[in-house]
Amino acid sequence: MPAARVLVTGAGGFIGRWSLPRLRASGFDVHAVSTRAGAFAGAPEFRGVTVHEADLLSPDGGAGLIRALRPSHLLHFAWIATPGAYADSPLNDRWLGASRALLHEFLGCGGTRVVVAGTCAEYAPTGAGPCIEDRTPLADTAGRVPSPYARCKLELQRELAHATRAAGASSAWGRVFLQFGPHESPERLVPSVIRRLLNDEDAPCSHGRQVRGFLHVADVGDAFAALLASRVEGAVNVGSDRSITIAGLIDAIAARLGRPGRILRGAKPAPATAPPVLVADMTRLRRAVGWTPSFGLDAAIDATIDWWRARLRR
Amino acid sequence: MPAARVLVTGAGGFIGRWSLPRLRASGFDVHAVSTRAGAFAGAPEFRGVTVHEADLLSPDGGAGLIRALRPSHLLHFAWIATPGAYADSPLNDRWLGASRALLHEFLGCGGTRVVVAGTCAEYAPTGAGPCIEDRTPLADTAGRVPSPYARCKLELQRELAHATRAAGASSAWGRVFLQFGPHESPERLVPSVIRRLLNDEDAPCSHGRQVRGFLHVADVGDAFAALLASRVEGAVNVGSDRSITIAGLIDAIAARLGRPGRILRGAKPAPATAPPVLVADMTRLRRAVGWTPSFGLDAAIDATIDWWRARLRR
Repeated sequence: MPAARVLVTGAGGFIGRWSLPRLRASGFDVHAVSTRAGAFAGAPEFRGVTVHEADLLSPDGGAGLIRALRPSHLLHFAWIATPGAYADSPLNDRWLGASRALLHEFLGCGGTRVVVAGTCAEYAPTGAGPCIEDRTPLADTAGRVPSPYARCKLELQRELAHATRAAGASSAWGRVFLQFGPHESPERLVPSVIRRLLNDEDAPCSHGRQVRGFLHVADVGDAFAALLASRVEGAVNVGSDRSITIAGLIDAIAARLGRPGRILRGAKPAPATAPPVLVADMTRLRRAVGWTPSFGLDAAIDATIDWWRARLRR
Repeated sequence: MPAARVLVTGAGGFIGRWSLPRLRASGFDVHAVSTRAGAFAGAPEFRGVTVHEADLLSPDGGAGLIRALRPSHLLHFAWIATPGAYADSPLNDRWLGASRALLHEFLGCGGTRVVVAGTCAEYAPTGAGPCIEDRTPLADTAGRVPSPYARCKLELQRELAHATRAAGASSAWGRVFLQFGPHESPERLVPSVIRRLLNDEDAPCSHGRQVRGFLHVADVGDAFAALLASRVEGAVNVGSDRSITIAGLIDAIAARLGRPGRILRGAKPAPATAPPVLVADMTRLRRAVGWTPSFGLDAAIDATIDWWRARLRR
């Protein structure tokens, strides 16, 4: 029997690249698709991975690649992720269309198992208690107006479940919560605080009273690879049931860098739409998939600081 | 100048004993009062501590002891703490009276600094976001009916602030959140789960979706000693801004004991009055007192398992 072959989309993205090591270790013949295939030549995560260059938003999208590779497995991360812009971007509808086309080509070519990256934004912010896959109201249930991002992800999730069932294939949907780590956009919260403190500059922050659960991004990618290799169906949270206030996270970073005085708490407004509590119930991923994270929060902070320190030194 | 002398009440209790090592290390002449002074002869936390036997609820209470010792500092933990009974017990009013008498005797004898153990139950459950000392509504604000426990603690807190100010003394009030560790009542959540799993028995649990922050109890006692040694006035949370779902905590214990299958999730009802989220904002203790915990959650779990394992083996 030949090795199972997986195609990973968005493999050059913040999360996608971290799925590759476990996919390789699980014995998959790993193929990745990116618009900038050449960028990953030396990166350790891409060792042993065949990288194809394609733009999934182009007219042919990834269909030609699917027909050429005929992967048995599909791990679909690619989507618009531009900080500050992704939630309301018209590109969400284009990514919905491209994802749909990719999925149907994959199933039409005999694909058997697919996992797609969803988002905690699919949940309606309840403000109380953890989000539970089959229990917490969704962002598009009656009376609510989801963001284009949440709406398109929810539409794709429903189509995924329907189409894979009709094709006799199997699928899961990973709802991504919050993560930080290497390669994050420098303007995002954790990198911006780390970079300012490393440069001995002030770091203006909001009140930081939001309660959030974070994973190291390498754990997020790893969890997706584990989910793909499992037989679990449907929505599965990919997050942490260990949470912290944003202020606590920032203070922990500052303490490790020895610069607590550089944190200007309350100097920036908190995002108006931020729910006070956003925490994942992790029972499904832990019990059904059997996955737990490798990094604790402090180890994740240290690894991220080390990565930025090495990068800024260059 | 003679060493500052501290009297610690409730020093034999779950939290109180853990304040003693740092008080000693800070150079205090440490005196403890307990109804069962003989019980602590060999305990390492009591090394170098003078233990007095007295019942603070008796007619003389601790007044005679205060007059005899004339402590400069008072750390008052003693209160009714019987699991399942303390919240509504009529003993709360008796402890309020005894505490008031102790406080006035202490101030009358020239005491200069006092810290009293309060409770997160003084906050009205908001269900959203962390509890902040000077911002979150209290359990006895208009329209709310506090438990006798919360009502008496809030009354004592107000009297403490007023009386110490009038006497030219200084005071703080530590609001205790959740903790586990050695010497906890065996019927409480963490000890009961650990003991059942160590005995290879099933552990029936509730749904576990409540979000909570825990400290190792040794850190709680240590934080009170640090608070006493500081000049911080008023209410200060003594908890963690790192939280976890109860289910996550129990799964972490079970994973460390290699018995995940013994957890019967949902076999018991959750307490009806439990707020979905109970998390502390830790800015004051961290920044004004300069205190952070020694134990991470996993280290706290390991230490607690080790303690119960040694005890059950005897």
